[in-house]
This record gives sequence, structure tokens and C-alpha cells, in this order.
Amino acid sequence: MDMHALTRELNIKNDAKIVMLVGDGLGGLPQSPGGKTELETASTPNLDALAARGVQGLSIPVKPGIAPGSGPGHLGLFGYDPLQFQIGRGALEATGIGFEMQPGDVAVRCNFCTLDADGNISDRRAGRIPTDESAPLAISLRKIRIPGIEIFVEPVKEHRFVVVFRGPGLAGNVRDTDPQATGVPPLEPEPEDDASQKTAEVAQEFLRQAREILKNESKANFHTMRGFAARPDLASYEEVYGLRAAAIAVYPMYKGLARLVGMDIVGEPTTLEEQMQVLKQCWDRYDFFFIHFKYTDSTGEDGNFAEKVKRTEQLDSCLPAINALHPSVLIVTGDHSTPAYLSSHSWHPVPTLLVSGCCRPDPHTTFGETTAITGGLGQFEAQYLMLLALSNAGRMGKFGA
Amino acid sequence: MDMHALTRELNIKNDAKIVMLVGDGLGGLPQSPGGKTELETASTPNLDALAARGVQGLSIPVKPGIAPGSGPGHLGLFGYDPLQFQIGRGALEATGIGFEMQPGDVAVRCNFCTLDADGNISDRRAGRIPTDESAPLAISLRKIRIPGIEIFVEPVKEHRFVVVFRGPGLAGNVRDTDPQATGVPPLEPEPEDDASQKTAEVAQEFLRQAREILKNESKANFHTMRGFAARPDLASYEEVYGLRAAAIAVYPMYKGLARLVGMDIVGEPTTLEEQMQVLKQCWDRYDFFFIHFKYTDSTGEDGNFAEKVKRTEQLDSCLPAINALHPSVLIVTGDHSTPAYLSSHSWHPVPTLLVSGCCRPDPHTTFGETTAITGGLGQFEAQYLMLLALSNAGRMGKFGA
Repeated sequence: MDMHALTRELNIKNDAKIVMLVGDGLGGLPQSPGGKTELETASTPNLDALAARGVQGLSIPVKPGIAPGSGPGHLGLFGYDPLQFQIGRGALEATGIGFEMQPGDVAVRCNFCTLDADGNISDRRAGRIPTDESAPLAISLRKIRIPGIEIFVEPVKEHRFVVVFRGPGLAGNVRDTDPQATGVPPLEPEPEDDASQKTAEVAQEFLRQAREILKNESKANFHTMRGFAARPDLASYEEVYGLRAAAIAVYPMYKGLARLVGMDIVGEPTTLEEQMQVLKQCWDRYDFFFIHFKYTDSTGEDGNFAEKVKRTEQLDSCLPAINALHPSVLIVTGDHSTPAYLSSHSWHPVPTLLVSGCCRPDPHTTFGETTAITGGLGQFEAQYLMLLALSNAGRMGKFGA
Repeated sequence: MDMHALTRELNIKNDAKIVMLVGDGLGGLPQSPGGKTELETASTPNLDALAARGVQGLSIPVKPGIAPGSGPGHLGLFGYDPLQFQIGRGALEATGIGFEMQPGDVAVRCNFCTLDADGNISDRRAGRIPTDESAPLAISLRKIRIPGIEIFVEPVKEHRFVVVFRGPGLAGNVRDTDPQATGVPPLEPEPEDDASQKTAEVAQEFLRQAREILKNESKANFHTMRGFAARPDLASYEEVYGLRAAAIAVYPMYKGLARLVGMDIVGEPTTLEEQMQVLKQCWDRYDFFFIHFKYTDSTGEDGNFAEKVKRTEQLDSCLPAINALHPSVLIVTGDHSTPAYLSSHSWHPVPTLLVSGCCRPDPHTTFGETTAITGGLGQFEAQYLMLLALSNAGRMGKFGA
């Protein structure tokens, strides 16, 4: 059963406003046995005050034991089953650099590589060529012309760049050309279904011209293509929830993910304070506000427990600005856990707090992984969080009579 | 995975008896921040005594955040996935007035309406014509004859009545004739699939004759047809669980829902005391007893916290009569929450108590929404409650070797 069939039918429009504040990678682990997590160590008076009048629980991003990337992590929070709706690697890479994919586009992650005199790969990453050398090379590929196809080439970082093909009849099931080995030639871009035949031919022609353009470059005289992916077909927030949705984010990846579900990207904030200003400015124009805070994740990825604690305190400090706007429903959560102890995304369920006028509060007066275990929301899959948000906002009618 | 494929294979017959006492809309909310819910406010010595030797938890009627109507709420408790098995509006209306639909029947909700001289609708509800005027009009439509089709016309209330068509080759996918607007004529009953072609023709002929019969009525000179629905195809309790099941209910809706899953409707009780007498009288003849108590819901719908507390205490007071029969498994639950604070059905999970000789008790000694959060049943979807009932009764074998 598709939950969006229900939300399409049952959503109600009213004046209620929903704020979803996402501390990326919010969940954590104690640094040593018996210790507290980052969130529990942080001084979070505002979150604790919300906990006292709200209900908390643990959000399972995908399924128990699955550590998600940013794509599935956010799709779950947005209410799209992350196992059903998958964003291909190429599309995620394009999204991550702020490229606005259109329906029908196919995006490809490309790596500069080095070929020896026999045409075999001697270095799959072209010696991790620095960005200031690789970007001009990527831009030189913008000369490539293929009749009937619009081509976008965007530098990324070091040996990586993105190519997007736009035109009729393209699909994303094309095999990677990276043989995952050196001493052998790159593979051909083979179609994996009939619908992707044309894409494979376009990719082949692109590679032919690229080889010509790059042939005299010493470090990076060719490139591979990986993760061919069409833009995922996601129904919009307006269509499935009846919500005018705003995304207030700093980083291109999260703006891109929000754009895929039809949110408006509002403002160009560079700090959390600026995000709060944008929130206030656009408050009257939207029903739903996705606010993304990156640094609880990046500090976790760095394995920096103390810095993640500080960034959690920074996240806490923005709450008075949100409270001042009196949202009908305020949710604080994360797209996954990023424990500093692991220096990576993890599968641990994410402490999640929901406050509304009709949320059936639980007895907790602080917010953290341990209290969330016995919170009133229990443990639930992230994909149901939007249903709770809508219901708490009075924006969902009754199912069946 | 269909759970009934499992229960069909694994159910075991024995002498164990299961009682499911449903306080309709049992779950609630505090009336003010920091307060207690209706169930927590009520004095419930018998429920608390059961809690001390039983296990409690929170039942999610459908999915987190979904507020169900009575239909999906009860189907979940009965163990039928409420998203898979949906009861159409017409079938639910017929069920609600006690009409016994047979397989192949198609039920339709009808509204008397008023047409102007041009045949356009001037009032979609015929001025909410009082029941004592509308019932004779509905009964006058029993004159309608259509060859090969048996027709039932049942008055409901005010402008509403139900028509049921019985005969070969009928199906329920026919479009509403109510245009949801005035100043336009009613729509034709168009079939939405091939199987419903005949039903649409039958409805058309019914409307033709009804127009003739009603043409000189000033208030209600026509009617619309909405919510065409076949009887849902639900396997019986006997077939899926191996249970001889009795429903002991006061209101037609709940008798009707129980009848849809093959329960026998036992007695004609009008009070909870009479329901207890019926229970005792039929105890030897059945394995499963569904006892429905309406007033925890209706008082919640009325927004009457104090009265819901009293009705909860009344529900508690029937437990000694049940205990005296020594059921193997006793379950106390609700089909959804109906907090007086919201005056409506809600999505909040429902406190649920299970007592058996092998139920692994939790430490709680009272029963309520807050204790249920940390109860041994955790939070679970209602559709699994019957599996727990069967297992606790020793009526489910092992799955796999």
C-alpha cells in the first residue's frame, strides 16, 4: 500500500505550519562504555523544554540495521519509502553539486583516469589530480557536440566530474565503464535494457570525442563513466501532502534533495542564523519548512566528539527563533546517526522530538537517545514521520468511515 | 505476506477461550498540559488488577499518524490488514444500519435532493428533510422493479437512505451521481470498469423510476447515489483462525462489521450488563468473544472528558463478570483513540492489555497511555493482535520446523 495514495486522498488544507528541523547525523554513541552520547552531553536547554511538552521516540531511517546515505535518509524523512524510491548515483552527484535535473535527464559520475600507451588504465583516478587542474579539463569537454542532445559537464572535485545528457528517449540503465582494475582498457557503456540503448550510444559518442580532446593530457588522458541515473520520479509535496514546502538549507545536496520532492529552495543562507532569518521572512508563504543543519554530521564524520557536542548546542540555540513563530507542529530529528565514535553514518535509530498541541506528551523532560527509547513515539520508520506531522497539524482526515 | 496464510496453516483447535473487550475510541489525551488522559483519570481497579498480571502496550490501528474510522479500526483488531481490505462507503452504511449484505450485493448511499424546474440541483440534501418525512419517501421507492434484480431500500436518517442491489453480475465501481454542486443536473451513474457495466445500468433504471415516483414531492423530488460498493470479500474467523466467534454488541455498525468476518451475532443486548449476561449464556458455544462498548467513543466525540472518564469506569466494572468465566486470554483494547480534547477519532496509538497464563507480564500495575509506552507489548500494528491472541491461547503452532 502506497502511503501517498492515502495522503493524496486524506490531506486537508488549513493554516497550520509544520517545521522539520533536521540535524544531519543527529544520533550518536557514547565515546566510552557508560558514557553519554553527543546529544546527551550537549547542553540543550531549548530541546529539553520542548521535550517536556512534546513526545519523543526513535526514527529508523530505512529498516533496523541499515545505515543510509543522505539520499535515502532524507527521502525517508520526507515520507518517501527509501527502498521504493532510490536515487541513482549519478542523479545524487548532480543533485549534490546543485545541478537542477529535469525529468528525462540522465546524469553520470565521471572519473578522470590515465591510460598507458596500449590504452589500458594505469590510474583509475588520474593520480587524484587536484581540482584546479581537473576543473579546466572538465570544462574543455563542454566542446563536445552530439546532435539532438543537450550536454552539461560540471566539475566536482579532484578527479571527479558530472555529465548530464538531456534529450528525448534517454534512460539510465547503462553499465559503468570503469573496469575497477588497472592494466585493462575501460569498458564500453553497454545498455542494460532496451530503453537505455540511445543513452549508451550517446555515452559512446561522448567518450569518443573526450578521448580526442584529452589525448595529449599527461595526467588525465581519458575518463570513465559510472552510476548512470535518470532523475527519480518523485511526486511533489504539494501533490501528495497539499503542502507548500520551503527548504532552508546551506549545502547544495540538501537543496537538491528537497527540490526533487518539489520544495521551493528559499534564500541563500550560509549560517544557521541566516537560515532563521529566511524562515521568518518566508513564514507566511509556506505550510512546511525543512531546515537542514549539516554540522552535526560533518563533525561526526570527522570523529570529533567534542565538536559534535558544540554543533549540537548550536542547533539547540536556534530553537527560540523557531518557537517565536509558533509553529503548529515542530519536529527535531536527523536523517541518520553519525556517531563520532564510528566517524561515519550508522544504522542506529535517530532521536526524534515532536511538539504540537495534541501530541500526547510522554513523561520525559530531556531529549536524547536514552530517553527516546521510552518515548511515546516508540521506534518507528522515518517514512511515517510525515503522517504524524500532518495529523498533528490537523491536516489529515480520517481513513475510512 | 498475508498473515492469514500463516494462521490458516498454523491454527490449532483446543478448548481455550479468547475474550476481546473493545472500548471504542479508548485512547485519549490529557485535557491540559501535564494532565492525565481519560483512562488515567478514571478509577479502574479491575483493569489495574489485570495490568498487574498481564502485559500492556500501544496498538497502532493502521500506521503511525493515521486516524481510522470504525471500519478500518475494527478490521485491524480482527486481524485483517485495514489497508488491504477496505470497506466501501455504501457497504459500510448498509452494515451500519444492520443490513446483512450477501456476497455479490452492491450497496449505495443515497441522498434525497431537490431539483429545480430545469432539472438542476437546488439543494443537495433536500433541506436536510426530517427523518419522519424522508422515511416514507424512501419506503415509497420499494415499488421500483427491475427484472432479475432484487432491490432493498432502507431509510437511514434525514436525507439519507441506502439502496442494495442483489443479482448476478454486479460490481461496485460506479461513479457517484452527486455532482457536489448546485445549479447543475445530477450526473449519470457511469461504470468505472467493465464488471460494473450492469450495475450502472441497474442504477440508471432505478433513478428513472425514482424520478417518476418522486416528481411531485416538493422538498425531495429526486435523489443522488454515492459510494457504490460491493460487500468486501473477507474470509471468516472460522476459516482463517479456526475460531467459532461470537459478537456481543449493541450497535448495528459493530454487529455488521463482525458479521463481515463471519462472527455470529449473539443476543440482542442493549446494555453492558446485558452483554455480560449474553456472554455467560453463550460461553460454551464459542471460542472467541468480541464485546463492543460504544460509549468511550461517543463521549469522546462529544468532547466530554468527564463523561468519557465515567464511561471508562463503567467499562472497568464489567471485568469481574468476564473474569468469573476464566477466559484463557483476555484482551482489553480500542479500535482507535477518541480524545475528548479533539472531539474526534485520532491517530494516537491505543492502550492495549493482554492477560493470559503465559503472557510474560511487564512491571506495570496500572493501565493507561503512559504505562503502555513502556509495556511489554511495545507499539505494534493492530493487525497482529489476533496472532498474539491465538498464541496466548495455545491456538497457534510453530512456524517452520
